[in-house]
Amino acid sequence: MTTMPNWLKQRAFLTPERTAVRDGERAKTFAELYEASASWARRLAAAGVREGDIVAVLMKNRIEMIEIVHALFLLGARALLQNVRLTPYELGWQLDDSGACLVIADDGLADRFGGDGRVVTIGALAALLEADVPLKETVELDETATIMYTSGTTGTPKGVLQTYGNHWWSAVGSALNLGLHEGDCWLAAVPLFHISGLSIAMRSVIYGMPMYIQPSFDPKEANGLIMGGQVTIMSVVAAMLQRMVAELGEARYPDTFRCMLLGGGPAPQPLLEACKEKGIPVYQTYGMTETSSQIVTLAPEYSLTKLGSAGKPLFPAELCIMQDGKQAAPYEAGEIVVKGPNVTKGYLHRPEATERALRDGWFYTGDIGYVDEEGFLYVLDRRSDLIISGGENVYPAEIEAVLLSHPDVEEAGVTGVEDETWGQVPYAFVKRKQGAAADEDELKQFCRQRLAKYKVPARIYFIDALPRNAAQKLLRRELKTLIPEAEKRASRL
Amino acid sequence: MTTMPNWLKQRAFLTPERTAVRDGERAKTFAELYEASASWARRLAAAGVREGDIVAVLMKNRIEMIEIVHALFLLGARALLQNVRLTPYELGWQLDDSGACLVIADDGLADRFGGDGRVVTIGALAALLEADVPLKETVELDETATIMYTSGTTGTPKGVLQTYGNHWWSAVGSALNLGLHEGDCWLAAVPLFHISGLSIAMRSVIYGMPMYIQPSFDPKEANGLIMGGQVTIMSVVAAMLQRMVAELGEARYPDTFRCMLLGGGPAPQPLLEACKEKGIPVYQTYGMTETSSQIVTLAPEYSLTKLGSAGKPLFPAELCIMQDGKQAAPYEAGEIVVKGPNVTKGYLHRPEATERALRDGWFYTGDIGYVDEEGFLYVLDRRSDLIISGGENVYPAEIEAVLLSHPDVEEAGVTGVEDETWGQVPYAFVKRKQGAAADEDELKQFCRQRLAKYKVPARIYFIDALPRNAAQKLLRRELKTLIPEAEKRASRL
Repeated sequence: MTTMPNWLKQRAFLTPERTAVRDGERAKTFAELYEASASWARRLAAAGVREGDIVAVLMKNRIEMIEIVHALFLLGARALLQNVRLTPYELGWQLDDSGACLVIADDGLADRFGGDGRVVTIGALAALLEADVPLKETVELDETATIMYTSGTTGTPKGVLQTYGNHWWSAVGSALNLGLHEGDCWLAAVPLFHISGLSIAMRSVIYGMPMYIQPSFDPKEANGLIMGGQVTIMSVVAAMLQRMVAELGEARYPDTFRCMLLGGGPAPQPLLEACKEKGIPVYQTYGMTETSSQIVTLAPEYSLTKLGSAGKPLFPAELCIMQDGKQAAPYEAGEIVVKGPNVTKGYLHRPEATERALRDGWFYTGDIGYVDEEGFLYVLDRRSDLIISGGENVYPAEIEAVLLSHPDVEEAGVTGVEDETWGQVPYAFVKRKQGAAADEDELKQFCRQRLAKYKVPARIYFIDALPRNAAQKLLRRELKTLIPEAEKRASRL
Repeated sequence: MTTMPNWLKQRAFLTPERTAVRDGERAKTFAELYEASASWARRLAAAGVREGDIVAVLMKNRIEMIEIVHALFLLGARALLQNVRLTPYELGWQLDDSGACLVIADDGLADRFGGDGRVVTIGALAALLEADVPLKETVELDETATIMYTSGTTGTPKGVLQTYGNHWWSAVGSALNLGLHEGDCWLAAVPLFHISGLSIAMRSVIYGMPMYIQPSFDPKEANGLIMGGQVTIMSVVAAMLQRMVAELGEARYPDTFRCMLLGGGPAPQPLLEACKEKGIPVYQTYGMTETSSQIVTLAPEYSLTKLGSAGKPLFPAELCIMQDGKQAAPYEAGEIVVKGPNVTKGYLHRPEATERALRDGWFYTGDIGYVDEEGFLYVLDRRSDLIISGGENVYPAEIEAVLLSHPDVEEAGVTGVEDETWGQVPYAFVKRKQGAAADEDELKQFCRQRLAKYKVPARIYFIDALPRNAAQKLLRRELKTLIPEAEKRASRL
């Protein structure tokens, strides 16, 4: 199976009247979504887009963004999805690196590209006359559908190629694990330009399932949609879930809500336990841009007994832990290595990086984890965040989890700072709860009781907000910029 | 994606403790099912089975039959599934035609093969010591997994090749249409040696869903399982459903029962209407051995408004109606032609038949139907059953539906009989309800009011039972043998 009918066109044929997407104000059926996408496609053709072109998309979460992505599919063009939080420099760098021939931007975002002649705003596109071009009726599973830039473990952004097959198998693997109910509606409060959000849009057409788009994450509104039974599944990262749980107070979600899919990095144990107490059906999951979202997810029956685990691979994907070139034993930490039809075929224009990451069909994630004796994955950390102190491996997430279990701590981030004696030492950054007063000494004392000496943060700073990306994922690398200058000088002595 | 982990092994790894299969007395988890299958595989290896071998299986519906099929998969052998109702001559013919090297038979069925040295009974197999052989950890999607003989439209049995990919995509397409619930359990009361039953076993391991096996169809027990919430989905043909509806009386199924998948030929309208009245969630479906079960199924939201339609193709399969080498217009009857990853790659040792049936990736089913303006399929008849009378096409199912709508008629079958004037004329065979007394004249009069003159049966015979195969499908070709000898002579005059 290498060729399939175009998903949206086929879906519009199979279940035309089903709701495809809604936001707070509008709703569109699959038939309407297809008509709108086909219309954009003919306008994009008028703007010069041809099969095989790379077209950048800089749009916020809204129905038109989904239409533009499908419109590009209908032309056989590849959608480069750009993060709306990037600086003009970073955006321009991606255009140059990818060789994008055009940029479709929200009217309010076009100025990010300066006067770049490749930029066409949605408003300008809507004003074009439709070109009379044939639209593609099929998709080739091996062809690149979308491209997303990610820094991965190296720091230099690389364009991850996501094929139609990657998206298809990701959606199928998720359905086989989480099930698929007639009344399902998936809430996309995560950005559509990230794989966490885009994969919801792909599932929507493949399943024939409505999705609900939040323009930006709003915990109160999200809770309201869940309480009202309007959404049954939601994708979140820990920071989002934390805010929703706080906003929820003593209330409990109704039975209609069946899955809180929690990705974006290791989750703090206290949060998982709070959700367990409140009966929130949290499914921890592990995945990344290179695996077109989830590749490992905890199955329903283990959500309570395997708290903290990301689960097992989605059918038919596979997983192993590699340590020094050998498969690690249970409980032995090592690099998480995955395989499956939802894994990227590589990086745009980066044959060497592709070869490094993909070996014998296995993708080396650069992340650290272990499996228990039953094969459940526990993600320890992103490899790039690994702190090596005096020859010992120190995982920031472990320290953060301890800090988060202190009653005064609301958020915590840990990173490694250079140290002449130990190579690196962990530094912690903490946001205290309102009115809480624990000071550095008290928290260090708290850590010393719970962690080996080398894991106790050398310094703990109190800050108002932790650096997070648009998907609310903690950016540990940026923590260092928060260290006061005087301290930096001191630590170098 | 051409290679996957072996489904049962992977499922036993992912959800070992989930129930895989139960009958009235026993239940096995996926871990237990895998262990049992692996053990049979090592015994089969001891009996001489090697990768690539064709091994016939003649077994009745029971857990061991599923284990044997998986055991053959674990050796890379192909399972030729034989119908337990066949005569010794027919069974032997299949062995010779296929080149099967071994037959695994239920202890009570081994005598069907006379003294054939290739036959190993389950009892004898169980007594063998396990050979120390490596078991296959993967399946190749393009490889043949199972073979089933079918007469199709030509009358000569042909072995249909079903690949792992065919089974996989069939299961996925079904899940995307019918959904997949955590509490699902699929009742297999249809034979496992037919694709209708085997496909349930394939879905079971791919979904991680329990199945419930009935050794043979029992309407009372089936109703009991549904009423008790033990099964949520069931595959039936019209004759089975008719008996279940009669047995059900005034009772109604609980909400836990979510799908009565009705295949095996066009369904009589009165039955569909009775189910509609009783709130039985009937999903009409169309499929065959060559499509590894369902390929067209009515989606949930159309089950009432499109009563009588088999629905639209399962994602990502496709369908069209061909008439005289051209695609037919809506409502124009023609040959049903299908395409998709669940379609067979052809017939065993029959290159010409394969070429005739598979053209440009499309499979010509030989069945007759039409689509409405929205693309919903209505199956009129199996081409081989088509009666051509005075140049007019007469579809037996249409006449049967009229007869079945008469209050005295329980079952009806129609076939064409040679006639010197008209070429063919329809003859009807009717089983009356207990105590009912309508005679031939009354039923003919009833038909005349509802059918064009050329469609009214020339003769109507009253019989005690209609000829059906093991899957309860009406065997119209055999109806002719029920015509009294004196009548045959008369009709030839």
